[in-house]
Amino acid sequence: MTTMMRREIAEQPAALRATLDALLPRIDEVKALAGQARQLVFIARGTSDNAAVYGRYLIEARAGRMSSLAAPSIATTYKRKLDLTGVLAVALSQSGKTEEIVETLTWAKDCGAATVAITNGGEHSPLAQAAHLALCTQAGEEKAVPATKTYTTQLAALAVLALGLGAEVDAADLDRVPDAVERLIAEPGDVEAVVEGLAEVSGVVVSGRGMAFSTALETALKLKEACYLHAMGLSYADLLHGPIAVVDERTPALLVAAGEGPTLPGTIALARRVTGAGASAYGIGGGAELATAATAALNGPDLPEWVAPMGLIVPGQILTESLARRRGIDPDSPRGLNKVTQTE
Amino acid sequence: MTTMMRREIAEQPAALRATLDALLPRIDEVKALAGQARQLVFIARGTSDNAAVYGRYLIEARAGRMSSLAAPSIATTYKRKLDLTGVLAVALSQSGKTEEIVETLTWAKDCGAATVAITNGGEHSPLAQAAHLALCTQAGEEKAVPATKTYTTQLAALAVLALGLGAEVDAADLDRVPDAVERLIAEPGDVEAVVEGLAEVSGVVVSGRGMAFSTALETALKLKEACYLHAMGLSYADLLHGPIAVVDERTPALLVAAGEGPTLPGTIALARRVTGAGASAYGIGGGAELATAATAALNGPDLPEWVAPMGLIVPGQILTESLARRRGIDPDSPRGLNKVTQTE
Repeated sequence: MTTMMRREIAEQPAALRATLDALLPRIDEVKALAGQARQLVFIARGTSDNAAVYGRYLIEARAGRMSSLAAPSIATTYKRKLDLTGVLAVALSQSGKTEEIVETLTWAKDCGAATVAITNGGEHSPLAQAAHLALCTQAGEEKAVPATKTYTTQLAALAVLALGLGAEVDAADLDRVPDAVERLIAEPGDVEAVVEGLAEVSGVVVSGRGMAFSTALETALKLKEACYLHAMGLSYADLLHGPIAVVDERTPALLVAAGEGPTLPGTIALARRVTGAGASAYGIGGGAELATAATAALNGPDLPEWVAPMGLIVPGQILTESLARRRGIDPDSPRGLNKVTQTE
Repeated sequence: MTTMMRREIAEQPAALRATLDALLPRIDEVKALAGQARQLVFIARGTSDNAAVYGRYLIEARAGRMSSLAAPSIATTYKRKLDLTGVLAVALSQSGKTEEIVETLTWAKDCGAATVAITNGGEHSPLAQAAHLALCTQAGEEKAVPATKTYTTQLAALAVLALGLGAEVDAADLDRVPDAVERLIAEPGDVEAVVEGLAEVSGVVVSGRGMAFSTALETALKLKEACYLHAMGLSYADLLHGPIAVVDERTPALLVAAGEGPTLPGTIALARRVTGAGASAYGIGGGAELATAATAALNGPDLPEWVAPMGLIVPGQILTESLARRRGIDPDSPRGLNKVTQTE
């Protein structure tokens, strides 16, 4: 049986192509709105919040502007105004209908921010309507509860946003992403070995750093919502400040890194520390050296660090879908969840 | 046997009094340095990072200035300069010696920020030396690996910082904190019931929101590092976007709230949802209504929401110490951890 989640994972190359084709011609609109912004604030929850973490590192590391994640409760629960002049507020929501996110973006606008919506809900969604500029992803309807293609296309929209903000990157790298994702779907690596390694455990630590931190958080969220695993997503720097104590023979680590970049050596060192202590470390990406240091490994995309997160999540999605079925769970509709989440 | 951790938990009323006595007279120094700051950025890891989350909500909700948490890797790994003029950068470190934090604060100063250090390491620690202004907590030497009194005194220093930034609060509330903490230590509530509820499980979700979100994160960190529990700290809004799926009869929830404030009703509703689904929900604080909605409950402090986090963590510390011993772990020195953590 092919699940909806598996089908939607496979639709990602086409969804990424369509999204890039739609949004790359709009870089000048981003420039016009955001050219003078001193800093960015992202507004999101759940999977969209993990996409925002990618945006935050990308914009700071490559476009040199301060970025941070908003605390929506300041707007919706404490109802406190802040001075947001000179700020570009970027809200992300798969559906474009989550009231908390629409309300927080509207609050940001009232506080003086320029506003952007990134959504798969289309131009007429409440979130797109509330923003000065809407960057609509072209993922098509997503039916499985665990988001896949709406997440990777959000990352593509954030990459376009970074280009509009003058990021010092080679825009041509984006053209390579859909094909690289397609290759990963065809050859994700030793999924069976990692599924077996996680089939009987109750928890796992998922770690990455910098640009790949978003992938660690999103992989952990997928494993929580669709496999009911106690998955703890952490930067490897934070992991060493306490949580490393939980890693043992019954609590493996899943370690994510691009095939290049300044966070790779630390990820390899962490894999060696974990396996040296008698626990299992599974690698995602990180090239041959991480695969060698790990107990078993999934492939990463052959992409530069700044666009790698669009591929790095894919083996984690495939792992989640397989592991859910192995654990007797229907990944398309995990218990307790709906496709559009309403929080106050 | 009395552990070091238990002794240090009991030292918190005195440590809080000493810290407030030392720092309250220095509000004018904070004003002079930070009065014109447009926004704050906190720099920290681990327990100190959880304290920073309190600072972030307090400063935004009560002092009306944008606040966010820095990504240290932008400074130390990506080595990217940002424009931080008009920013007050506040670094927190128990020891004042963690190189990554000292390096990131120095980077912030080089980027144009005014800088504050909050540390228990004293005026001569590298972090205090690197900052324009050092607010030294007076917790005395902390020997147990899991931080307790250095955390609550960091919160006290952040409350003083908020006063210096003109927070709209009643400063006299702070005087009530040490006695309220003392009462909580004497009467923490039904610790044995919660210890038994967590004795055989492998994971727990810890949730709170707004000002109490920091308490949820810090309680989860304590349970990870000293009890090897798969503890997942989440805002209750984020919990509903996916991770709620992991809560079941073998994965209870621990829910934290002050006895008043706008996040209390949502916390009570979450407790009812969890117990209604057949899982266990343990309360910390939240008054009689949360205790009634929960399977069992620990007491919270009789304090206004803005200072409540200095007390709300205490039942979680006591729980951690008892649960560690119940699970056969020495809470003073969990595996794999040192008192001063070095990350690059």
